[in-house]
Amino acid sequence: MLELPDKVTIKEVGPRDGLQNESEEVPFKDKVAWIDLLSEAGYSYIEFSSFVHPKWIPQLKDARSVATSIRRNPETTYAALVPNMKGLEAALETGVDEVSVFMSASETHNKKNINKSIEETYPVLEEVVKMAKQESKTVRGYVSTVFGCPYEGDVPVEQVAEVSEKLLSMGIDELSLGDTIGVANPKQVDDVLPRLQERLSFDRIAMHFHNTRGMALANVLVSLQHGITTFDASLGGLGGCPYAKGASGNLATDDLVHMLHKMGIETGIDEQKLKEAGDYIQKVLKQSLPSHQMQVLNKERV
Amino acid sequence: MLELPDKVTIKEVGPRDGLQNESEEVPFKDKVAWIDLLSEAGYSYIEFSSFVHPKWIPQLKDARSVATSIRRNPETTYAALVPNMKGLEAALETGVDEVSVFMSASETHNKKNINKSIEETYPVLEEVVKMAKQESKTVRGYVSTVFGCPYEGDVPVEQVAEVSEKLLSMGIDELSLGDTIGVANPKQVDDVLPRLQERLSFDRIAMHFHNTRGMALANVLVSLQHGITTFDASLGGLGGCPYAKGASGNLATDDLVHMLHKMGIETGIDEQKLKEAGDYIQKVLKQSLPSHQMQVLNKERV
Repeated sequence: MLELPDKVTIKEVGPRDGLQNESEEVPFKDKVAWIDLLSEAGYSYIEFSSFVHPKWIPQLKDARSVATSIRRNPETTYAALVPNMKGLEAALETGVDEVSVFMSASETHNKKNINKSIEETYPVLEEVVKMAKQESKTVRGYVSTVFGCPYEGDVPVEQVAEVSEKLLSMGIDELSLGDTIGVANPKQVDDVLPRLQERLSFDRIAMHFHNTRGMALANVLVSLQHGITTFDASLGGLGGCPYAKGASGNLATDDLVHMLHKMGIETGIDEQKLKEAGDYIQKVLKQSLPSHQMQVLNKERV
Repeated sequence: MLELPDKVTIKEVGPRDGLQNESEEVPFKDKVAWIDLLSEAGYSYIEFSSFVHPKWIPQLKDARSVATSIRRNPETTYAALVPNMKGLEAALETGVDEVSVFMSASETHNKKNINKSIEETYPVLEEVVKMAKQESKTVRGYVSTVFGCPYEGDVPVEQVAEVSEKLLSMGIDELSLGDTIGVANPKQVDDVLPRLQERLSFDRIAMHFHNTRGMALANVLVSLQHGITTFDASLGGLGGCPYAKGASGNLATDDLVHMLHKMGIETGIDEQKLKEAGDYIQKVLKQSLPSHQMQVLNKERV
């Protein structure tokens, strides 16, 4: 009954989306060592940091040094988030492979997050995309609050489609559609995806689920059946939920890889090396990561 | 694309399957108060204890007093696990509505768990079922290791079907098929269920998933699509994994109810009252329960 693909691409967002939500700052050399471990695990894509003003995200203030210190696996695309032209310029100087931009599908969330209306955001991103393209870089776009907004509640699918179309029309290569607050349920995903597919080409769409309510893997399963084959995830479930240890935010890469491999789907990622990388960052952060895989690993040691 | 039922029955196994795996013994009066809170939440079924020798499960040594002290909601079936005739007799004396028996689909797990071969187990259960029926009680049967055995690995579907058929032929009213060690993946569920459906009537089958690897809700989703509408769960994800706090074992009732309600499926259970019951047992156990719902609740308090 399930229709599943043979292969799925997983994009690791832990070093950016994960660490930016950790209260503890990870020492520079540990960060580099961790990203190097991730590179060895076989990822085709790692978002390693964000070129944003340290006033906003002090945890990632070392983006520039990280970019130039990590070992670059030729099989891996190394990407960084850039909020504006200044960020882009810094990122370009360090030789990133790809940059990502972001905005929200909900007006209020967009305003609270980047202090601009949706309409005001487009020209800022357009300028960034244009210059990145001139420098022959690929660009990724994050669309937040696709399945619900913490301020507005429901977000109309038309609005998500409109923002997405606008971003793709700028020349953005891939869009990552985010369930920012982890409210999507499988039926909603099943309802929303076909409506988006009428307007967007799914070979340019990735899904970015959060596991706040435990439904992320079920949502992945439904997405797979609608032809989505690229997913964002954060190793160990790191980040995405800064307020409580143990509460999960980001979908955990290790749980996702485990499920996919069990279902016979290739990811190119080595589960043993993933475990080692998870264990490494767990020790650095001195906390137990919330993914099921890490919990099982920690348990085996008791 | 998803085909979902309008209504699902959830059977709460927390007071038995949950508490029997807790290292801490819950004081008798707290246990009764907790089960009373569960009754108020709208369950149609609560497995409240196990009539097993206290040498094996000291946590449930008060089964008899619990049975006669809880407030019996007339809408709820109150069931207890019985390993043998002695347990059955004790259970019958306390006026339980239903008894449950258990065995494993895997030879080795059955031997380790109940010290008998599968063949030797049948007559023991048969006697229990016969007497329970004479006393006009319904009987539930648990089949363990349906999706994998900790000792044997894979368990052939034919073996699961054979054990299940044998139990149903004794007059058992409903079978709960357990993923005892939490290894089932959605594709496996999708493969196994149609093969079982060829031999078993699904209106007498419930699924009992563990969330050890985070796949329980995805497995529920697949089961729903195969026509299964009864699921076991344990409030807060209590129990099922005695060795490490925070690691999840049993599928959490609150996470399951949340997902089903979000998908528009009725359960008859009040989420707010469920939360209160979860909060109560969390305080009694002085530990944070692993379900996503309880984690979100705990976080909101930080």
